Amino acid sequence: MKALVFDLDGTLADSTYQHVLAWQRAFAGAGIIVPAVEIHRRIGMDGNLLIAALDRAFSLGLDAAQRANLKTRHAEQFAPMRREIRLFCGAGRVAETLEPLGIRWAIVTSGTMADVAALLDAVHADRADAVITGEDEAESKPAGHPIARACAKLRVNAHDAAVVGDAVWDMLASREAGSLGIGVLTGGYSREELSSSGAFRVYRDIAEFLTRLEEIGVQAG
Amino acid sequence: MKALVFDLDGTLADSTYQHVLAWQRAFAGAGIIVPAVEIHRRIGMDGNLLIAALDRAFSLGLDAAQRANLKTRHAEQFAPMRREIRLFCGAGRVAETLEPLGIRWAIVTSGTMADVAALLDAVHADRADAVITGEDEAESKPAGHPIARACAKLRVNAHDAAVVGDAVWDMLASREAGSLGIGVLTGGYSREELSSSGAFRVYRDIAEFLTRLEEIGVQAG
Repeated sequence: MKALVFDLDGTLADSTYQHVLAWQRAFAGAGIIVPAVEIHRRIGMDGNLLIAALDRAFSLGLDAAQRANLKTRHAEQFAPMRREIRLFCGAGRVAETLEPLGIRWAIVTSGTMADVAALLDAVHADRADAVITGEDEAESKPAGHPIARACAKLRVNAHDAAVVGDAVWDMLASREAGSLGIGVLTGGYSREELSSSGAFRVYRDIAEFLTRLEEIGVQAG
Repeated sequence: MKALVFDLDGTLADSTYQHVLAWQRAFAGAGIIVPAVEIHRRIGMDGNLLIAALDRAFSLGLDAAQRANLKTRHAEQFAPMRREIRLFCGAGRVAETLEPLGIRWAIVTSGTMADVAALLDAVHADRADAVITGEDEAESKPAGHPIARACAKLRVNAHDAAVVGDAVWDMLASREAGSLGIGVLTGGYSREELSSSGAFRVYRDIAEFLTRLEEIGVQAG
């Protein structure tokens, strides 16, 4: 294993539940009631895909203007909650843990730069070998393309990289790219949901993962 | 099967995610960072037990004054979110579905009357045969006592009743009381988490459950 690709929301930063409420409020503002759990299980897709998935699941028949409006409303609802988002235990130590081991690393998020800029600073993303945000890729997770792109930037074959994420969409993207999928429980998916979506291992949080890197084939420094 | 005992938050009403943020903000206000998922998986216990469980899990060493303060802060944080809580599909039809079948029903919630009063109105709890709130029982779920008390009020043996809930705590309480546990996915627990906690069946939501009552031994009217 030569490189690690990290998801951000729900994996490094505790933002999933705020995103759930921001989306639920965005839909409610358009007069559409969506159960929170249905949103929760679609967090980690990019916003356009999340809207399209809920549109299909609940036969909403949204037009392009309504979809754009929902994205705007979500951004408005989420913005005031940004300041309460905290990193998970261990998320601030990714760089200092991986650098001595010679492991290259990247962050691949479906989030917008407006929502993730402060979090990227907090996880020392300036020390990452690649950072891909929602703006960078026409095709976002659960497609494998952004993972493949990150691996290209890291100059590793995707087969020599592991994707660390909290959502089944991370596992799906990892599989499509040909990387090893590693789950963390911090986004609210269960161990079984992640395992049955292809996670090779599931850890409680990023802190536990960083203490067990040898379990995925990273050699101790 | 002669009677059904329903949980409220996460089962009839879509309030779990608001409670998660209200508790997280309550802890943050006391300078304590708790990951949202750790709160989520303890929702459905009453507030004192939730605080005690997190105190133990994170070795917080909270004293009585701090615990009381956290409960107060949670109530303050949750209050402004009450108005956005909606019932799940089907939750408003419990009374009209069960009455023609001769099935008695109760609601057993760990919530406080202040938080659940409007929701009880919305689910026509005045037509329920018993309603037990957090104030009514010294010993709340996951203990079986409030389930046993509801069954006594319904004048059924607990073995002839099913408990319908979204949390593993509902399944644990159901088991202790000797009732059949039935899970719904609307609180954000996974199918496997509920099944492995003893749920006999797991339904997507209360609406699906009400269309499949014969699967738990309720005879069609």
